[in-house]
Amino acid sequence: MVISAGAEQAAKKIKMVIFDVDGVLTDGQIYMGPSGEIAKSFSARDGMGITLLHKAGLQSAIITGRESQIVARRAAELKISSVSQGCADKRKAYGELKQKYDLKDEEIAYVGDDLNDLPLIITAGLGCGVGDAIPEIKKYAMLVAESHGGTGAVREIIEYILKKQGKWKALVESFMASHPVDNIGQ
Amino acid sequence: MVISAGAEQAAKKIKMVIFDVDGVLTDGQIYMGPSGEIAKSFSARDGMGITLLHKAGLQSAIITGRESQIVARRAAELKISSVSQGCADKRKAYGELKQKYDLKDEEIAYVGDDLNDLPLIITAGLGCGVGDAIPEIKKYAMLVAESHGGTGAVREIIEYILKKQGKWKALVESFMASHPVDNIGQ
Amino acid sequence: MVISAGAEQAAKKIKMVIFDVDGVLTDGQIYMGPSGEIAKSFSARDGMGITLLHKAGLQSAIITGRESQIVARRAAELKISSVSQGCADKRKAYGELKQKYDLKDEEIAYVGDDLNDLPLIITAGLGCGVGDAIPEIKKYAMLVAESHGGTGAVREIIEYILKKQGKWKALVESFMASHPVDNIGQ
Amino acid sequence: MVISAGAEQAAKKIKMVIFDVDGVLTDGQIYMGPSGEIAKSFSARDGMGITLLHKAGLQSAIITGRESQIVARRAAELKISSVSQGCADKRKAYGELKQKYDLKDEEIAYVGDDLNDLPLIITAGLGCGVGDAIPEIKKYAMLVAESHGGTGAVREIIEYILKKQGKWKALVESFMASHPVDNIGQ
Repeated sequence: MVISAGAEQAAKKIKMVIFDVDGVLTDGQIYMGPSGEIAKSFSARDGMGITLLHKAGLQSAIITGRESQIVARRAAELKISSVSQGCADKRKAYGELKQKYDLKDEEIAYVGDDLNDLPLIITAGLGCGVGDAIPEIKKYAMLVAESHGGTGAVREIIEYILKKQGKWKALVESFMASHPVDNIGQ
Repeated sequence: MVISAGAEQAAKKIKMVIFDVDGVLTDGQIYMGPSGEIAKSFSARDGMGITLLHKAGLQSAIITGRESQIVARRAAELKISSVSQGCADKRKAYGELKQKYDLKDEEIAYVGDDLNDLPLIITAGLGCGVGDAIPEIKKYAMLVAESHGGTGAVREIIEYILKKQGKWKALVESFMASHPVDNIGQ
Repeated sequence: MVISAGAEQAAKKIKMVIFDVDGVLTDGQIYMGPSGEIAKSFSARDGMGITLLHKAGLQSAIITGRESQIVARRAAELKISSVSQGCADKRKAYGELKQKYDLKDEEIAYVGDDLNDLPLIITAGLGCGVGDAIPEIKKYAMLVAESHGGTGAVREIIEYILKKQGKWKALVESFMASHPVDNIGQ
Repeated sequence: MVISAGAEQAAKKIKMVIFDVDGVLTDGQIYMGPSGEIAKSFSARDGMGITLLHKAGLQSAIITGRESQIVARRAAELKISSVSQGCADKRKAYGELKQKYDLKDEEIAYVGDDLNDLPLIITAGLGCGVGDAIPEIKKYAMLVAESHGGTGAVREIIEYILKKQGKWKALVESFMASHPVDNIGQ
């Protein structure tokens, strides 16, 4: 993980994490059939990460340039608070989210991979890139995951935030029942 | 393969191997279509491993947090003895399995990859992790496969158990007909 | 990226980029179901590249040996100017394209990966291969991408052309709004 | 490619190449949907290899342990001469093929990856393994591809055979039209 100075302080203030879809929640592959897009492939481990994010009291949202019923399905399954699709300019959706949830820039983390994510990477309090993001994203992101999009990058970023907020250990313990947790996920 | 002290002794006692699904029997990718999950991708070589496990007289089971008709199909194809889906807390299903098949913890191996597998990794006689399991799993597992989930980890773990039980060579020979088997799968 | 002498000069003249499909716009995997091909997997990032190509005033086309409704769908989504499918000999379709769009060889880039792409790799002004193209293609291509087919090779080649034509920086800036762009994508 | 002594001589006599499916013509991934197997993923480049094999006058066949309409579709598309599915013991199908096409063992190459392929790897004149075949297969195969199953191993093996039979260069030339072929695919 590439961590810029200031990322730790920024992570502590985050109340909502916003995700791009293609290349972030997926590996960027669009499975196209004869009558349109038939599938996107999501990571179960990212899903667990988003579930933990909610359990820790943070919110999540999706802002994506494409439009697909698939995204609505996955978002519903993961109980993602808000989904904005078909956003030619993502700043508009971002502004609406801020207003609706009464959030400041510094309370928002945004995870992206490509050019249309650049404005939000720069604007959000904690701009994050997946491990295979384009160079322009990596340049401006405060946090760049080791893992690639769709294969754990989202989980990695969520864990970073929750650990910096001191919420990770309790989450792990909630899975452990009576077994003592010593230095897991410190 | 990362093998803890005691894994060999533990492997000799195993009568049933229990698998998590996403990230263990699959690579953790959930193929989502416009009307829900359309596919999971399973490994043919893991399938052969489970077939060999049964041939050697051991039993298999599935305990998974998600719920999907897909898992029931794959389990039926592989003649997996028992399938428990939608398990928010996997310990409950584990306890029922123990009772139904009259097994002790030390007779059970469990293969997992993520946080909700932690309790069973710790409880089962032989806790196993896939090669790309989260650090918390790797910490407590007695056996960590080289291969990642969905791409041979399950096969690797099954072979380890069958070899330690002295059952592997006969299985290979059963495929070989008249050709002499010398030092295959020693 | 492997860049032959002359590639830079050749890139400056390009007005149209022609793509093979399997192994170039996809990773060469054909997802076959019980009643025929059910999916091809395209890269969202390549898609963004093609969108930027059009935005910069260049044209795009597809010439493929196979035939599939899937390709027509993806091409429509990306507004690719011309699609020629089922081309046993790709030179015929290439000749028709040249005539229809009144182009010279030196104004055309062609991206391929396998033997049936060889004639066009040689004929087009800028013959390009994906990173996992066969040796025969790599031998004759002026430009060989680092990335493999279906996972960014097309994006890489498009960026090379647009940068050599001096059009890249303005495209990046168009995403950036008010934030100053210094040395992005020079 | 790992080439045993004798492989070159063996390759010269081959008249038919027989393929296993899962793990050889595919990467071993079985895409399972709620109502059964929905897809296998085949390599376009392997497909081109099989087309070239036929063009050079050799035959191809499939012998697989599983049973799937998908395999019949792909085989038809590639004009594979014979398809035997659901073979618990592959030797039976192999014997029938030999008789039907009046072939000797030394005229047959067999490509496999797992235990049920062992007998044919040993019996066929040229036993071949994919790059990620199990150790038992690699031990007995005369030829082990560099590439993994489903991602070029079949193409690699076909090229080896056709080159040793002195048929490769003419095939490449057939794609090249008027352009001189010098040291391509020597």
